[in-house]
Amino acid sequence: MLARWGDVARGVGDDAAVLDVPAGERLVVSTDASVEGVHFRRGWLTPAEVGWRATTAALSDLAAMGARPLAVVWAAAVPPDWQADLPALADGVGDAVRDVGGHIVGGDLTAGTELSLTLTVLGSARAPVTRAGARPGDTLYVTGALGGPLRALRVWQRGAEPAPLDRERFARPRARVAAGRWLSAHGATALIDVSDGLAADLAHVAAASGVRCELHLAQVPCVAGATPLDALQSGEEYELLSAAPPDVDVLRCERDTGVRLTPIGRVTALDPGAEPEVVVRDAAGRRVDLPPGHDHFSRAC
Amino acid sequence: MLARWGDVARGVGDDAAVLDVPAGERLVVSTDASVEGVHFRRGWLTPAEVGWRATTAALSDLAAMGARPLAVVWAAAVPPDWQADLPALADGVGDAVRDVGGHIVGGDLTAGTELSLTLTVLGSARAPVTRAGARPGDTLYVTGALGGPLRALRVWQRGAEPAPLDRERFARPRARVAAGRWLSAHGATALIDVSDGLAADLAHVAAASGVRCELHLAQVPCVAGATPLDALQSGEEYELLSAAPPDVDVLRCERDTGVRLTPIGRVTALDPGAEPEVVVRDAAGRRVDLPPGHDHFSRAC
Repeated sequence: MLARWGDVARGVGDDAAVLDVPAGERLVVSTDASVEGVHFRRGWLTPAEVGWRATTAALSDLAAMGARPLAVVWAAAVPPDWQADLPALADGVGDAVRDVGGHIVGGDLTAGTELSLTLTVLGSARAPVTRAGARPGDTLYVTGALGGPLRALRVWQRGAEPAPLDRERFARPRARVAAGRWLSAHGATALIDVSDGLAADLAHVAAASGVRCELHLAQVPCVAGATPLDALQSGEEYELLSAAPPDVDVLRCERDTGVRLTPIGRVTALDPGAEPEVVVRDAAGRRVDLPPGHDHFSRAC
Repeated sequence: MLARWGDVARGVGDDAAVLDVPAGERLVVSTDASVEGVHFRRGWLTPAEVGWRATTAALSDLAAMGARPLAVVWAAAVPPDWQADLPALADGVGDAVRDVGGHIVGGDLTAGTELSLTLTVLGSARAPVTRAGARPGDTLYVTGALGGPLRALRVWQRGAEPAPLDRERFARPRARVAAGRWLSAHGATALIDVSDGLAADLAHVAAASGVRCELHLAQVPCVAGATPLDALQSGEEYELLSAAPPDVDVLRCERDTGVRLTPIGRVTALDPGAEPEVVVRDAAGRRVDLPPGHDHFSRAC
């Protein structure tokens, strides 16, 4: 594995890895598990894609803090029928880390009856951006275009093969590290990655920030073929949702990071005594009911 | 879970946790997975013990670097028949962290078909101690007394219930954080925790340090009923093995940390062209053949 990873691996082989956090920066850490039969089915993805996707899901949490990756440790429970695929899985992990920077510094391999990958990622930022800072007057932005993973899942679930672009969005998501750092440097007050679905993740921002978030359905960027409601419900997008000043230069963001940034709504103050909420409006200004949230114990597969 | 953990949990609820590493210290990180049917069987341990043991296994890697714990993140794949035990599992995780210090700062819960806990631990030390620094002339020391986990496993494997003290060594090991820091402060040149078995872990030190390690079988501290050969083979002890100067004050270590420290052998130089090795000698000075090592893909259960 170390040979396959080459220079993306570093210092693997002691009880623990030793790292230095850049002076003046804070450490950011997150852990994320991907379980066969829960997060993916074997027939859907190649082993390299399984490794890439599990790793990107974790790295996305660093992007969502405006942090840059320093190090990744992985734990894998590997059933006998996956052991031959371990090199390809490891390639996927290594490629995903190489895509955003940082090093693989340790891991733990054990037997198991289902493939389970747990990626823990460490990053750093001078001032990490949480979900809790959205302020009335901010604009809501999202990176990329949404709906692909949901479209891919639906097709797989009925036993067919998704369209290549939808499949790619599910199998090879990108951790938006550059966009997260760009947003952090350009006044982002709140950041979160779209893992539960845009509507559910926006609700997390509203609750953490104590605000009301108004989402304009017609402005939500959708992949070809996806409806705006698909885009609201599609989870595991690993795009970033941000609250930031209204004057953020979205074209400059795209030029600097290669990632499209779209204004999709605004943050407003809560009425006295009101609970934080998300209000979705259609093009005519009518409220649209939100789909139910994602249950972490439910099986996507 | 947060309510159960009380003040041992901190800052859980954003995409990632934010931490500060004490100035002048280096960050130490390790990850460790515990899988039902691989590392334990359900009938052997209470849910709280499963959580404790999985967490201690990870924290032990910090002890083995001479580091003190800062933070723990956990990922759990939880099958339906374990969901009711989740609070007790979480108690075990929380109690193990409380035992050595540090905070639980994040986690990820998913469904699964077998219980799998992955604990990632972060700690810090001014000068972490690796396995690679053992020098000819050093004495080898081990904490505690060995053999209990192997004795417990053997009894469980034939369907009986182990003696309470053996069971306790398997179910409630302690991460030797205080002893690891003490050894680091008193000249330890190499540290490793006994997870694969004393003989196998000593071989890791010999290989990493490029030395020969001589182990005196009669000096290996054994739990009641265990033979020295049991003690050599017993894995998942989570005691510490250290190379350090011969004049380490073992009584003072016990007074300062509450943990017994026993000299068990010495480090010698390799002959020119010789490979690093472990030589085990009985009381009469005869070489004893080493038992075979631990296979990470084999099932203990």
